[in-house]
Amino acid sequence: MRGAVLYGPRDVRFEERETPKVIKPTDAIIRISATCVCGSDLWPYRGIQAVAQPTPMGHEYCGIVEEVGSAVKSVKPGQFVIGSFFASDNTCLICQIGYQSSCQHAEFVGTAQAPVLRVPLADGTLVPTPEVPSQDLIPNLLTLSDVMGTGWFAADAANVKPGSTAAVVGDGAVGLLAVLSAKQMGAERIIVMSRHESRQKLAREFGATDIVTERGDEGVERIKQLTNGIGADSVLECVGTQQSMMQAIRSTRRGGYVGYVGVPHGVELNGEQLFFAHVHLNGGPAPVRRYLPELIKLVWDRKINPGKVFDMTLPLDQVAQAYRAMDERRAIKTLLCP
Amino acid sequence: MRGAVLYGPRDVRFEERETPKVIKPTDAIIRISATCVCGSDLWPYRGIQAVAQPTPMGHEYCGIVEEVGSAVKSVKPGQFVIGSFFASDNTCLICQIGYQSSCQHAEFVGTAQAPVLRVPLADGTLVPTPEVPSQDLIPNLLTLSDVMGTGWFAADAANVKPGSTAAVVGDGAVGLLAVLSAKQMGAERIIVMSRHESRQKLAREFGATDIVTERGDEGVERIKQLTNGIGADSVLECVGTQQSMMQAIRSTRRGGYVGYVGVPHGVELNGEQLFFAHVHLNGGPAPVRRYLPELIKLVWDRKINPGKVFDMTLPLDQVAQAYRAMDERRAIKTLLCP
Repeated sequence: MRGAVLYGPRDVRFEERETPKVIKPTDAIIRISATCVCGSDLWPYRGIQAVAQPTPMGHEYCGIVEEVGSAVKSVKPGQFVIGSFFASDNTCLICQIGYQSSCQHAEFVGTAQAPVLRVPLADGTLVPTPEVPSQDLIPNLLTLSDVMGTGWFAADAANVKPGSTAAVVGDGAVGLLAVLSAKQMGAERIIVMSRHESRQKLAREFGATDIVTERGDEGVERIKQLTNGIGADSVLECVGTQQSMMQAIRSTRRGGYVGYVGVPHGVELNGEQLFFAHVHLNGGPAPVRRYLPELIKLVWDRKINPGKVFDMTLPLDQVAQAYRAMDERRAIKTLLCP
Repeated sequence: MRGAVLYGPRDVRFEERETPKVIKPTDAIIRISATCVCGSDLWPYRGIQAVAQPTPMGHEYCGIVEEVGSAVKSVKPGQFVIGSFFASDNTCLICQIGYQSSCQHAEFVGTAQAPVLRVPLADGTLVPTPEVPSQDLIPNLLTLSDVMGTGWFAADAANVKPGSTAAVVGDGAVGLLAVLSAKQMGAERIIVMSRHESRQKLAREFGATDIVTERGDEGVERIKQLTNGIGADSVLECVGTQQSMMQAIRSTRRGGYVGYVGVPHGVELNGEQLFFAHVHLNGGPAPVRRYLPELIKLVWDRKINPGKVFDMTLPLDQVAQAYRAMDERRAIKTLLCP
């Protein structure tokens, strides 16, 4: 088969890779229905995160089970399944607490920009849909593999409750789905920091009530103006830079909550500043597996449409164009069809 | 009157200061029954935190109201009162949320190592006891002004619940009272990191079940051994150094909680490390005022004896010796009697 391989900065190739097969009895092999490019793929694509060798890419996936190892009990060939970007056994002490992305046997699923994928720990990782979905549901279901689950974790980690005031830092796909998540969790006011008209529009559609275009001190000031002078109850950090992280912390009211899901790059937090900011800080790799059953139900019942973040669709063999469009911010997120 | 004034590193003098009087109608004047030296007083005492000019010291207090301003309604002369080290109006939006130490009108009460003290925002700051307490209760009540409330916040911020496994980093007075707090909140296992026999003894008396003497990697390893290999549910950071903070974060299980109350000095947290540690981080200046009614009741009903952290008592005029004894770790905490 052919799949995406990153060779170095801005050099993604679609080339021959070995077709995955069952290696361990706990594996499943999936025929991918759709995959996509993640904002976090752009870190190595831009050279901000080095790649030591040609690296297969992609960690968002859904599709039809083709084959399972001898130990797999909970999914079977023919089922449509979704899994997290971290495979998890879903039985260890950490999984039981709901932190499957830190499973004691976690394995990163990193070769999903391809037509066929091996998923380890299939029983703990994959969740089947009630039946094989109609085509229009597939983009929505695909988002549950990472981007929607990550936005949901941002809102959950930031303690969004009915009546909360929430602010979202970042208008990428995760930020936009953090808006949708905050709305679902009952936030009354949802402020999104965005300077891009098309993203502002989608943010409003997902439930944003206010747009803040300012950044830095002015951005903080603007959010305070919108929140009785004290800052938001919940701030959802969906970028991962020093600037975005400080923006989030400073926009939170004392005693409030920062949920951070942007993978930090070059972030250093000053202890004293954090202490006197007096906020709860909670984040990390989203435990997407925990949320899958609930989010599949919301999509299946057509209560949410997270797939709207895909504003570009390309055949998988044009994966290089998909990266380029996102790098240049011409696309929010690109869906790839094998 | 005479009170404590810090002139520079290891130079505390007991000297003539102006006797406080009502300045604003919201003030109260208190005759101090007991005061003490705080671990955080040692930062400037040791020169780690610079003092620009001779600075009156002390922020832990309880005593008898002598006089109140014309606007004060909730306390009156003759009552025994306790207040937080941060005066708060207890009515602003932040106070209503329970974060009185970040009150929008907060004022630090920093001149308490003296026989008489002016407390601003008396209505919002001071809580009277049911009646004037007997002498033996005074050390217990004094701790509620900061050290006990701070240990309590550490446990609360670290989400200690019945059945939790808690670890306490730091065996100073705050750390020891964090042990007592975790015990009160129902922690089943309480691990304290301590190398000092007298402190270990008091920790055990307060409810510690395990002592860890190792630090750094070995300390983390030891805590993991005691917690099914995953780390503690709740870690209470009561020091404020880079080492103690990282010790706390690394000793927490994924998805667990770090409550940090040691005022950070020179602490820088790496964003990526924090992200993958996958912990909740919550701390800052303890909102002692929130806890006062509950803690006064626990002391009044003789359910807790936090005053046991005072292992040295001196007359106020020997305040310099009190600092020295704590600096040299000859005393856990020194009570000062005017």
